[in-house]
Amino acid sequence: MKNIVVFGAGLSASVLIDYLADLVVENDWMLSVGDRDIDLVESKLKGRPNTHAFKFDVTDDFQRLNEISKADIVVSMLPAHMHVEVAKECIGLKKHMVTASYISPEMLELDQRAKDAGVVIMNEIGVDPGIDHMSAMRVLDEIREQGGKMLQFETFTGGLPAPQSDDNPWHYKFAWNPRNVVLAGAGGAVKFKQEGQFKYIPYHQVFRRIERIDIPEYGQFEGYANRDSLKYQSVYGLQDIPTIYRGTLRRRGFCKAWDVFVKLGATDDSYVMEGSENMTYREFLNSFLAYNPHDSVELKLMHYLKIDQDNDIMDKMDSLDIFSDTKIGIPNATPARILQHILEQKWTLNEDDLDMIVMYHVFGYEMDGKKMQRSSYMVLEGDDRTNTAMAKTVGLPVAIATRMILNGKISASGVKAPISKEVYQPVLNELEEYGIRFTEREDTYRGY
Amino acid sequence: MKNIVVFGAGLSASVLIDYLADLVVENDWMLSVGDRDIDLVESKLKGRPNTHAFKFDVTDDFQRLNEISKADIVVSMLPAHMHVEVAKECIGLKKHMVTASYISPEMLELDQRAKDAGVVIMNEIGVDPGIDHMSAMRVLDEIREQGGKMLQFETFTGGLPAPQSDDNPWHYKFAWNPRNVVLAGAGGAVKFKQEGQFKYIPYHQVFRRIERIDIPEYGQFEGYANRDSLKYQSVYGLQDIPTIYRGTLRRRGFCKAWDVFVKLGATDDSYVMEGSENMTYREFLNSFLAYNPHDSVELKLMHYLKIDQDNDIMDKMDSLDIFSDTKIGIPNATPARILQHILEQKWTLNEDDLDMIVMYHVFGYEMDGKKMQRSSYMVLEGDDRTNTAMAKTVGLPVAIATRMILNGKISASGVKAPISKEVYQPVLNELEEYGIRFTEREDTYRGY
Repeated sequence: MKNIVVFGAGLSASVLIDYLADLVVENDWMLSVGDRDIDLVESKLKGRPNTHAFKFDVTDDFQRLNEISKADIVVSMLPAHMHVEVAKECIGLKKHMVTASYISPEMLELDQRAKDAGVVIMNEIGVDPGIDHMSAMRVLDEIREQGGKMLQFETFTGGLPAPQSDDNPWHYKFAWNPRNVVLAGAGGAVKFKQEGQFKYIPYHQVFRRIERIDIPEYGQFEGYANRDSLKYQSVYGLQDIPTIYRGTLRRRGFCKAWDVFVKLGATDDSYVMEGSENMTYREFLNSFLAYNPHDSVELKLMHYLKIDQDNDIMDKMDSLDIFSDTKIGIPNATPARILQHILEQKWTLNEDDLDMIVMYHVFGYEMDGKKMQRSSYMVLEGDDRTNTAMAKTVGLPVAIATRMILNGKISASGVKAPISKEVYQPVLNELEEYGIRFTEREDTYRGY
Repeated sequence: MKNIVVFGAGLSASVLIDYLADLVVENDWMLSVGDRDIDLVESKLKGRPNTHAFKFDVTDDFQRLNEISKADIVVSMLPAHMHVEVAKECIGLKKHMVTASYISPEMLELDQRAKDAGVVIMNEIGVDPGIDHMSAMRVLDEIREQGGKMLQFETFTGGLPAPQSDDNPWHYKFAWNPRNVVLAGAGGAVKFKQEGQFKYIPYHQVFRRIERIDIPEYGQFEGYANRDSLKYQSVYGLQDIPTIYRGTLRRRGFCKAWDVFVKLGATDDSYVMEGSENMTYREFLNSFLAYNPHDSVELKLMHYLKIDQDNDIMDKMDSLDIFSDTKIGIPNATPARILQHILEQKWTLNEDDLDMIVMYHVFGYEMDGKKMQRSSYMVLEGDDRTNTAMAKTVGLPVAIATRMILNGKISASGVKAPISKEVYQPVLNELEEYGIRFTEREDTYRGY
């Protein structure tokens, strides 16, 4: 009897657990799920046959090693920084492993060890990274097999409220980790390539240099650039491509308003604000504005950032109650932490809210001396607060890969991302059964 | 015979060496100066009696310890990060020490050890920090002795070309370390207090939030905020002051144009640009601008940063030849390194150029129920390329403090800055003989 051990039963694990729990009896497998909160695990496993819940303390090295030793494959939904440690133990004990996280340089160093041990350490097989890689590689491989030469690759993903829950002026709620949303783009220059030229954008301009994107039936979006698009040149075999750009999707108008927080310095996570506990929202905003005994915070903000009074940015700001005297109540907080707190009051998905994952790729290429352009997009809405679009798009590819590895359908060993046809083709095919389906469109070539 | 050992004979050491060399015979002292470049030391000592040049390798722990052991006082003009090591050795061997550098937290930790050893480790006794502390403390102590309550303290210092050498549209040349000028303000939010409110400015807005300052006979300047003004509250005994602000002086119009480089991301020192060696100035600029096959780099820049064609910012940019096809020629360079290189072609002081140090303080206070304001300013021009304003304002206070310590005029031991009257009064009095003289002015109180 093969044993699947899952570490972590948080938000994105529900769909994963359901998928695997439905398979274990027919395959004579065991599904063991560990989390700090054992009640949570039990509520997700629902006492189904061949499943087992255990209380798991990630910092307990002995327990972790013991659970890995009993596994045939380990699925780690732990925070990304834990994965190298787990991977080392999996390789040492010759166990396969699956994660949805980015391959860190330290993880990549384990590649030869994993090959020598004959195990697969499959990473980046969630949604972003994950479905983005697989759906892009399918089109890239197809174009190249037909003799096309790639000129341009742009890709965008966003986690957003579904249309029925899109009810605030920002058209945004926290579908992903709020802290990561607040810090998006911070910490270094954005790098990409346009028409053969390397381009760099400092953090404070990222939200002013956006791309406009239309998606049939879903309307208008905009994309801002992710940190380093260049490293995907080698991953996708696009070393000499003139244009490569990875970005994040928001609804039209979001970036221009978010830029206000960036310009104020309200997303800074590097220092603690004096007296944050007793500060009000209004005083928080005022900390970034020059002193003036006569002008209101509203007027100082508009004047400082040259915002017209009837600009919809001011409606967006108002909707956060950010000009109010509400107390922050968090001691020793950084600006980013305070901003996150303010946003969480308004942008947290309610029990009846649905989320939505949107992905959009553009491929420019030359074939038979002609320049062509193809786009490919996918929109998935959540079913409810358990089967969210996020949980489905992260959990399903992880679960499918786990099944394929156990069934010997993924044979190559080493530290992997799902970029080989052996992996992406069957995963994408199966994802279609769950409504995760890409639509392709041939356009006239526009270039960048 | 007491021995003064000076480490480092670079730019700002000339005036220091001359001051001490003139004193050694009458006091029966020896002056020993060490530098990596012994020819440089000899050219500065000029074979004067009781002076001694030695070749000094700062990384040679044995030589350093040996030279310190032979000293009665050590004057360190080494890079700031070396000072803690030298200070530890001075304390261990019971030798006094003088530096012009900021007191680092590690240096401050040595305070009790220095007291126990009965030695003075005098720091921050150059110009900024140094003359700024001393001249401010003199006024602050005077106001407080007269019963005044401090409401406001703002202080600005700048190293600039003297009027006769002020011949480019930026009205600026490198009087201080070019790298520090390019990176000024980078690396964290600016913090200060205005009318009792804590204020924070992110790096990318620092050059848009300036103060305008006029100085009689020298005209118009502007000041941008230094990193952390708040830490000077405790140093100056101003814990509860409503307004405190430290800044750097430039000529009017500099900051608005410098802001272009900040907004582009051209002062970033955190990543290496692809192909920097073969890049031209124009391509460097273009790396920060969106791709467009039709528009010129000039037009893209003006459009991106909303600069009118006839704005003097464009003249300032033109004066740097930054739109030209000149090759950069530096491999693996960061944006900041490249920008420094471009600026050095135009902003390096020539052999016949003179520099100038400008310092300006504003003191707001309440006395007898009345709000008052006093300003105090000092301008010093260099005599020539050896006796620069910088070398005089850094070297003279260091030299005077060295003499006073050897003569027993400074008695308090420990890690010190020149903020006690015992130190600043005689130093400031003697500096007046060298033309370093503050003018005070009573103004009507304006507040912030």
